[in-house]
Amino acid sequence: MSRTVRRRLLRVGEGGAQWRGDDVVTEEPLEIRIGGAPVAVTMRTPGNDFDLAVGFLLTEGLVQRPEQVRTIQTCSWKQTGELNVVEVTLSDDAPPFDPASNGRNFYTTSSCGLCGKASIDAIRTRAQWEVRDDPLRVDAALAASLPARLRQAQRVFERTGGLHAAGLFDGSGELLCLREDVGRHNAVDKVIGWATTERRVPLRSHVLVVSGRASFELTQKALMAAIPMLVAVSAPSSLAVELAEECGMTVAGFVRDGTMNVYTGAERISGG
Amino acid sequence: MSRTVRRRLLRVGEGGAQWRGDDVVTEEPLEIRIGGAPVAVTMRTPGNDFDLAVGFLLTEGLVQRPEQVRTIQTCSWKQTGELNVVEVTLSDDAPPFDPASNGRNFYTTSSCGLCGKASIDAIRTRAQWEVRDDPLRVDAALAASLPARLRQAQRVFERTGGLHAAGLFDGSGELLCLREDVGRHNAVDKVIGWATTERRVPLRSHVLVVSGRASFELTQKALMAAIPMLVAVSAPSSLAVELAEECGMTVAGFVRDGTMNVYTGAERISGG
Repeated sequence: MSRTVRRRLLRVGEGGAQWRGDDVVTEEPLEIRIGGAPVAVTMRTPGNDFDLAVGFLLTEGLVQRPEQVRTIQTCSWKQTGELNVVEVTLSDDAPPFDPASNGRNFYTTSSCGLCGKASIDAIRTRAQWEVRDDPLRVDAALAASLPARLRQAQRVFERTGGLHAAGLFDGSGELLCLREDVGRHNAVDKVIGWATTERRVPLRSHVLVVSGRASFELTQKALMAAIPMLVAVSAPSSLAVELAEECGMTVAGFVRDGTMNVYTGAERISGG
Repeated sequence: MSRTVRRRLLRVGEGGAQWRGDDVVTEEPLEIRIGGAPVAVTMRTPGNDFDLAVGFLLTEGLVQRPEQVRTIQTCSWKQTGELNVVEVTLSDDAPPFDPASNGRNFYTTSSCGLCGKASIDAIRTRAQWEVRDDPLRVDAALAASLPARLRQAQRVFERTGGLHAAGLFDGSGELLCLREDVGRHNAVDKVIGWATTERRVPLRSHVLVVSGRASFELTQKALMAAIPMLVAVSAPSSLAVELAEECGMTVAGFVRDGTMNVYTGAERISGG
């Protein structure tokens, strides 16, 4: 399955309308299973599906370390021929997984559905690592340049305009991993899943850059991987900033053309 | 609870860094209950919560008509004082609702988690109305102007940059309802919920305009309300276009500055 599909469309412009071909970003379901039991279905852009599954499991607290993923394989749902299931088995030391209670659990996390103050409490108890004392310091000009670097590295976006990107940078501004997806939480899970498989988690002193808004959900995922700084091209939400502030994480938004807003954790920005 | 909160932030620009105040869009959880049983939790921007709940119930097929919402009230979760629960009771002729199976059902819909071809089949059997024969015809120049009209009417976006908008237009291009939310599916549910409560559903010969991308989920919601045309400022996904094509719905994307791409249902665009 390709990351884009070719479609015939009617282009309407100043000079009238013409039929032409164009690329559209692929959106297809992926079901993640643990030991045969469905855990999650997400609408994603195909590609890096193992990264997506591993990242989802880590950011949802279903695994804590890459070694807890004993086997991972892909298969087809209802013999459609399309590989839209990732089947995972976990080692015995993984956190206990109860398929019976999962419907409720998963629904909660897929819709970011944790309630107000309680949700902030919950993430703090579930996260394995603290980011508060992370010694990362990033020069203001470097931080403000990261979205442009991410954009330069994006390939599919230019053709389809339909993809979110997430990029993992080290403290010196080097791009370590870029992933694109029709769902921004998937792009983040793919990046964190890559890092998990590469044995790079916890991602201390790294920066996560996202091409759109910073929501509560993305902030939560970054914290689950111990990332101390989140940089967003667009606006953060109130709950994203509140969660980051309570956990000692840095959040910058509207990072464009060398300018940015630092909403919390400004001590990590130097030379601003 | 306000739609924005004031935050102190460090603005980093060409001339150095200054602390200043700025508005951030509010993101807070809302739990929707039927007869006391939780149906969904969504992270939303407060405001029009009854519209959001009614729209969600209609687009998920949990109610078919506004009369099936017998009572609707708001209350607080765990006495936090914030009104973050909407409690609904349904009439006896509403579709049967089984809280025991809901975890699974809801998790499916909140993540758009219906599987490939089966999902397209499922929406067609669940939708009460057909849009295929909807006689709506929209002049190309009018259709291409709708996102600009939506943007003109947006109020909070200009201040925060963090809100998605959805607008319902009639066939002559008149804006009937505009809603904004940190979640784009919520903005659409709020618009459809408003129309449901106003006894305007099925929304035959109406146009739904969204400020971002056209995903499978938004296309599905529009179909559940019998809206025959979806106009998106940004790109559609492959599955959104495929679903619309199979149901005889019109989808236009990249609608900006008088130009647009019509991905399917081009027969409704005249004078292009």
